[in-house]
Amino acid sequence: MTALPDCQALDAADVLASKRAEFKIPAGKIYLNGNSLGPLPVRALAHSLTLIEQQWGEDLISSWNKHGWIDMPVTCAEKLGPLVGVAPGQLLCCDSVSVNLFKLLAVALQLNKPRTTVVSLQDNFPTDLYMVQGMQSLLGAGQCELQTVDEEDLLDSLNREVAVLLLTQVNFRSGAMLDIQSITQRAHELGILVIWDLSHSVGAVPLQLDAWSVDMAVGCGYKYLNGGPGAPAFLYVNKQHQAKVSQPLCGWMGHTSPFEFSPDYVPAKDITEFLTGTPPILSLGVLSAALDVFADVTPAQLRSKSLALADYFLALVVARPELSELQLVSPVNAEQRGGQLAFAHEEGYAICQALAAAGILSDFRSPDLLRFGFSPLFLRFADIAKAVTVLADIVAQRRFDEPAFKQRQKVT
Amino acid sequence: MTALPDCQALDAADVLASKRAEFKIPAGKIYLNGNSLGPLPVRALAHSLTLIEQQWGEDLISSWNKHGWIDMPVTCAEKLGPLVGVAPGQLLCCDSVSVNLFKLLAVALQLNKPRTTVVSLQDNFPTDLYMVQGMQSLLGAGQCELQTVDEEDLLDSLNREVAVLLLTQVNFRSGAMLDIQSITQRAHELGILVIWDLSHSVGAVPLQLDAWSVDMAVGCGYKYLNGGPGAPAFLYVNKQHQAKVSQPLCGWMGHTSPFEFSPDYVPAKDITEFLTGTPPILSLGVLSAALDVFADVTPAQLRSKSLALADYFLALVVARPELSELQLVSPVNAEQRGGQLAFAHEEGYAICQALAAAGILSDFRSPDLLRFGFSPLFLRFADIAKAVTVLADIVAQRRFDEPAFKQRQKVT
Repeated sequence: MTALPDCQALDAADVLASKRAEFKIPAGKIYLNGNSLGPLPVRALAHSLTLIEQQWGEDLISSWNKHGWIDMPVTCAEKLGPLVGVAPGQLLCCDSVSVNLFKLLAVALQLNKPRTTVVSLQDNFPTDLYMVQGMQSLLGAGQCELQTVDEEDLLDSLNREVAVLLLTQVNFRSGAMLDIQSITQRAHELGILVIWDLSHSVGAVPLQLDAWSVDMAVGCGYKYLNGGPGAPAFLYVNKQHQAKVSQPLCGWMGHTSPFEFSPDYVPAKDITEFLTGTPPILSLGVLSAALDVFADVTPAQLRSKSLALADYFLALVVARPELSELQLVSPVNAEQRGGQLAFAHEEGYAICQALAAAGILSDFRSPDLLRFGFSPLFLRFADIAKAVTVLADIVAQRRFDEPAFKQRQKVT
Repeated sequence: MTALPDCQALDAADVLASKRAEFKIPAGKIYLNGNSLGPLPVRALAHSLTLIEQQWGEDLISSWNKHGWIDMPVTCAEKLGPLVGVAPGQLLCCDSVSVNLFKLLAVALQLNKPRTTVVSLQDNFPTDLYMVQGMQSLLGAGQCELQTVDEEDLLDSLNREVAVLLLTQVNFRSGAMLDIQSITQRAHELGILVIWDLSHSVGAVPLQLDAWSVDMAVGCGYKYLNGGPGAPAFLYVNKQHQAKVSQPLCGWMGHTSPFEFSPDYVPAKDITEFLTGTPPILSLGVLSAALDVFADVTPAQLRSKSLALADYFLALVVARPELSELQLVSPVNAEQRGGQLAFAHEEGYAICQALAAAGILSDFRSPDLLRFGFSPLFLRFADIAKAVTVLADIVAQRRFDEPAFKQRQKVT
């Protein structure tokens, strides 16, 4: 086996190295959890002050026009265009992933009548499944039926009875990645519409939604996009579908002329039809500033760095015999995973807590998964080397056995 | 006619006078638009810095536990309890008014099957009507039918075929106020469930939702509550209904154990069942801080000051012959209106713009309404005196004829 490259040399060669300075990373911490909640971009803090103190505080209601608040769901989303491969007019930043999924599910079912089956994976992120279950309970039996399958049965489960395929590209536990292009193509051959959840992809994995003829998609603003806790989500509706549908959460912001205050809903003739209520300007403004961090980087650079960090982590783990009790759950092949690595260990929870106590912030997912996220914008290869060293010490010395590390928190 | 009291004397006697210092009011401006977007509470700015720089920036993901982010939809809502007369366990701060209305509408229809009619007023705030129209289009003919009536026909339109009555207590244009208690009681006699929209009430009008046996309610966080542009809305579900229903926007935050990531939705056994996606912590934190401004005032004090400001405004307008061309659209009787006054004038839009140019910030509502909001926490009687003087000058000198004042903005 050849010797592993030195982390200093890798950092010296990193074309994204300078981006780290654009984030506030707490001293002494190594943050391997940017795939759960991205860290604070320095410019987001500055912008929040402008937004709150000057725009809200000084210009008050006039800011809806003067500072473009009213257009923010669109202008914020346009910054996402290059990251997801989408031409203007098809993206919005609004609401939560869950609420946006409901809108898209409704229009996809409407477009594909009389089909009623929604296929998804049993281990999809739960909220995706829950929203289908909610639609099912609302519409009643026979109007929307959720069918969940295991990944190996996915393609076999598709047929001309299926209305909608709802998939998350990167699995939230394992990091395993589905091939959007080929699955979408196969679904289209059978007349199935596909909704992609890109929550664990965007900002780490290059996407070409237009080129891949994706129908609809949603994604999260607070993971690799670093938009802040509970940041507004985004939605994508391919232009070819927009004119044919109307979505049921049709609040006043989706009206073609909201400020005429007409009692009858007339949907906007563009993507803003997918808006619902008044947008949360403070959260949206912080997300918008966070997206500016991506303005001078390419999706390919992000992907390349993220995989290099993960592969380095993996190689260091493999090189440590004391870590052999950690079982890799993610695909070994980098091309088959997103920006994270997951390892099973029966003491996964306590190891995660012990790591945190040592300044290495990772994530735990029930029942036994340790999850490490490789955000390309602020992590250094030196961080990776340090993290694996600490992890190896914790495991070798069984420091996770300390009772304090086993106490469960509300959010884990 | 007796002489009007002096504004200085009124300010000297104002028990809420000291609250003004808790807001940032731009120098030289008189803000009569707090019923549209409340001004910035000083503590909200301070808290946003703590939230962004320390909690997000330093404590990162651990803040979900450490700083109680996960409970914020409940803890924020509990601060609202005294303002709306609600015991713990029945309020949430989340999503927008529109999205929350959809949830409540779904459960109210579910509770009152097989009835399907939703009655509302033709001049209700449009998003309320739009959400019923969206539900109607989603469920299909015969499952949900919107019937809008004029206010004078409201009670006659109620019968045992009606499932849900959806009303806004204070009309967004005229400020006319409905009697929640008597209307709810009449509806209940006919087996009708009532959803109240309190967007133009809360923070200005005392409410006793529990005592009045209200079924469900929604309200806005960014008007009299001063929670910031697009602040999360709130919802109320009377405890007696909670166990019997499940709402369709059932995202992971409404699950009884969200962090078990089970593929099957099991609703929480309390009000948190009405949560959907990840809450927007930054917007929610700012709203929460804004609500602390109300901790040492009573709803009765708020109401008394708000009406005193409005009555003073009205008396000053009436005393000015040059303002006789403004036609009062709001009820003259203070008990029949909320915290605002509206006047019709064919040049209402231009007058609103001319006022703004002179530092008096009011609102315009199509087609011809000038709207003035009397927020009790930061307005002074001296502001009212000054505003009416400026208004009289503008009208007397027809300064609204200046072409610049007639140019329409996107948001009006």
